[in-house]
Amino acid sequence: VASVTGDSKMSENGPWGKVLTIDTMNPTVKKVEYAVRGPIVQRAVQIEKELREGVKKPFAEVIKANIGDAHAMGQQPITFFRQVLAMCSYPELLNDSSFPEDAKHRARRILQSCGGSSLGAYSASQGIDCVLQDVARYIERRDGGIPCNPENVYLTTGASDGIMTMLKLLVCGEDEGRTGVMISIPQYPLYSAALAELGAVQINYYLNEDKCWSMDLSELKRSLKEARRHCNPRALCIINPGNPTGQVQSRDCIEDVIRFAAKERLLLMADEVYQDNVYAEGCEFHSFKKVLFEMGPEYSDSVELVSFHSTSKCYMGECGFRGGYMEIINMDPEVKAQLNKLVSVRLCPPVPGQALMGLVVNPPQPGEPSYINFIKRSATLSALAEKARLTEEILNTVPGISCNPVQGAMYSFPSISLSKAAIEEAAENDQAPDMFYCMRLLEETGICLVPGSGFGQKDGTYHFRMTILPPMDKLKVLLTKVKEFHQRFTNQYS
Amino acid sequence: VASVTGDSKMSENGPWGKVLTIDTMNPTVKKVEYAVRGPIVQRAVQIEKELREGVKKPFAEVIKANIGDAHAMGQQPITFFRQVLAMCSYPELLNDSSFPEDAKHRARRILQSCGGSSLGAYSASQGIDCVLQDVARYIERRDGGIPCNPENVYLTTGASDGIMTMLKLLVCGEDEGRTGVMISIPQYPLYSAALAELGAVQINYYLNEDKCWSMDLSELKRSLKEARRHCNPRALCIINPGNPTGQVQSRDCIEDVIRFAAKERLLLMADEVYQDNVYAEGCEFHSFKKVLFEMGPEYSDSVELVSFHSTSKCYMGECGFRGGYMEIINMDPEVKAQLNKLVSVRLCPPVPGQALMGLVVNPPQPGEPSYINFIKRSATLSALAEKARLTEEILNTVPGISCNPVQGAMYSFPSISLSKAAIEEAAENDQAPDMFYCMRLLEETGICLVPGSGFGQKDGTYHFRMTILPPMDKLKVLLTKVKEFHQRFTNQYS
Repeated sequence: VASVTGDSKMSENGPWGKVLTIDTMNPTVKKVEYAVRGPIVQRAVQIEKELREGVKKPFAEVIKANIGDAHAMGQQPITFFRQVLAMCSYPELLNDSSFPEDAKHRARRILQSCGGSSLGAYSASQGIDCVLQDVARYIERRDGGIPCNPENVYLTTGASDGIMTMLKLLVCGEDEGRTGVMISIPQYPLYSAALAELGAVQINYYLNEDKCWSMDLSELKRSLKEARRHCNPRALCIINPGNPTGQVQSRDCIEDVIRFAAKERLLLMADEVYQDNVYAEGCEFHSFKKVLFEMGPEYSDSVELVSFHSTSKCYMGECGFRGGYMEIINMDPEVKAQLNKLVSVRLCPPVPGQALMGLVVNPPQPGEPSYINFIKRSATLSALAEKARLTEEILNTVPGISCNPVQGAMYSFPSISLSKAAIEEAAENDQAPDMFYCMRLLEETGICLVPGSGFGQKDGTYHFRMTILPPMDKLKVLLTKVKEFHQRFTNQYS
Repeated sequence: VASVTGDSKMSENGPWGKVLTIDTMNPTVKKVEYAVRGPIVQRAVQIEKELREGVKKPFAEVIKANIGDAHAMGQQPITFFRQVLAMCSYPELLNDSSFPEDAKHRARRILQSCGGSSLGAYSASQGIDCVLQDVARYIERRDGGIPCNPENVYLTTGASDGIMTMLKLLVCGEDEGRTGVMISIPQYPLYSAALAELGAVQINYYLNEDKCWSMDLSELKRSLKEARRHCNPRALCIINPGNPTGQVQSRDCIEDVIRFAAKERLLLMADEVYQDNVYAEGCEFHSFKKVLFEMGPEYSDSVELVSFHSTSKCYMGECGFRGGYMEIINMDPEVKAQLNKLVSVRLCPPVPGQALMGLVVNPPQPGEPSYINFIKRSATLSALAEKARLTEEILNTVPGISCNPVQGAMYSFPSISLSKAAIEEAAENDQAPDMFYCMRLLEETGICLVPGSGFGQKDGTYHFRMTILPPMDKLKVLLTKVKEFHQRFTNQYS
């Protein structure tokens, strides 16, 4: 039995209790929320376990449409990427004649850039040299030749890591001088979680659901003006193509945002991880960097911009490798030195993820042996486009569900009408109305979606986020089940 | 040209300047220091570049003995690990008859535990299920059967990530109630960097250089007593085997530390990443968990302990994969729920690193085809033991250098005598005396070591940290060059 001591600090926590309790832990961590892996997903995992244990349910399997995890939904990895990674992992395979020469060439190039020619050595904290160069060349190709200096590229542990690092650099001040960061609502909850963890002020600007979730200059102005009364707004985050909302920003809109950031002196953080996921007719991905530079030196010499990309989305969907990069533009050199120091504490991003990021930005080229196989990736993107279209179409046939076109990214975010009775029952269960809805959906059908309340939405509106990633046959089943459930639920609470 | 606005918050930063400057960035980030990749390493990289460009130097190559990076020093990866990783990356290889059956078995088992049987799917945030189980069984074997529940194991992005996460959970309070964390001096600078970043109070306790860098109960008491005057000490960090100091703690010493933590109500954080790196006769690794449980329920039912391990050190040295785990013991369930939430925001540790961690804790067994090859790892450890002995021996032949036995880990941390003249010249260069010394060593010999000031040391003492990882022939050259340099330097500043 531990002895009771007279020290007052100890007795505060109770002399017999734990050092670390819910009352004595970091209060900012307690404020963190992350719906994409929140209570509904925990319940889904539990239900899967119950199914394995033979518990009878009105469904045979849980369908997880809660997270953009392409491989978990059966998408196959790109052969070329995996061949190179296998050779990098086990270089004996460089002697295996069944691997194509272009894959061998890439593997040798990556290994030569690694300490001791091994993926097992630490890399420079900014990333493997040849990958930084390949990323820079990729950005230049993507942006029609606008130069990219590899010294401005940082490899990251997925995009989340880069976003967190940039926010960490930025946050300072107390009380009304505390750093505020503008984020879209609905948002991807990494942003709110990171801001809560850092104790920064979250400034909401609402996307316009009536205009296909577009950004609205007047709303940005309103949001900023209000925020200036109680904090120091210093950055504006944009997700394009949008998560969870699936919109693709027009070039004009991006110009407006850049002008706004320049005028209001906001650092721009452009989350562009879905840059290849554009499906809708007439939509096109425009990188913030390209637009910034095309607006001329008045903007491109001064506006501070950080852009994030990742191996996890697009056609490759390699989430597990945690690969990513960020490009910093117009960063103060003294701050860059601090960024270099900060990333060095974590030593380096995972080297296999760095290698994969390198392959994504330097894939097989016409004439190389792996090219013919590689171009099949376009089938993955076409299938996603078809699923995006189908999801919108079917959901819009359901009275009480209204779904904007899924122009890009991997999600639909339809609004759902909930009756007063349903809202009251949710309140009795101490749940947000759309959480109550999604939980019921899960229990009755095995379908796991994320309630709109986890992403933020206008008061009095309700939504869910659903990935469009399940294979076509499963997606159709899923949409039919959602449709039937919604009708049942509506009847029950009418 | 950006327009000047009347807003006072903007003009604070200068109307024409950057949003993010050294004056307006996060002040806690500015306080972060990380010597292992600090100015001396940056200069080493520059010198390497100069050598490649043909600049004449009094040496042909830079020898980096600044970081525990075994593969960069030519150590070869374990074939079995890399075969399994190659098959996990490119499962077609499961049909390749040249891979042994036990490797195939492990690869299939890992893939079955991955979403969509792919390393490219997100795992659960805590880690792949089968790896969590394998880690738990490894800990049980290591600790003579003391039970380990896989639910208390968290896979991490290297040990650094786990340490950072735990500290983040712990830190709270303001002013005199601010969380303080006790760390050894000399320390591994991740700790000081993490505490600076979190704004926690660093509480130094000094290791006893005269007693082979052992921990001293009276010093722990002194340190804690002083700290209680200005902060709220809540955790005690131990690195065993020691980094940078190479000591291996005795069982008695560990018992003392546990009793101290129990009495003083401190959470224990045991950094045990060098658990297989024990070289000295009569030394043995004792895990904090084993000792805690052998001390009986008075301690094992209450003392909160977190232990960290990694794929980066020991015989495997796989730093680039960023694999690791932590085991939490006696954590409050409500805090554990918060930990689960916190790790979910980063989605999951890199899956290849998780797979590798799984292999490290579940290596080939006697009778399996890869076993005969795998046991050659003992040669790696014997070679390290020989290098540890040789390093101590040669350094101790140099007048003015005094080196404790390298009982374990991967570093020697000798003290160096510096004359008044040398110290004055360092001050004129605005450098710590041992930074001045190491910088001169680098410029004259191409050898890159880290000055003791980057790890902390008693005032008026000077050290450097040197890894024992270079291949034997290179290590001998390195030690001879250090010896000659020290004599030259001493003569020059006598």
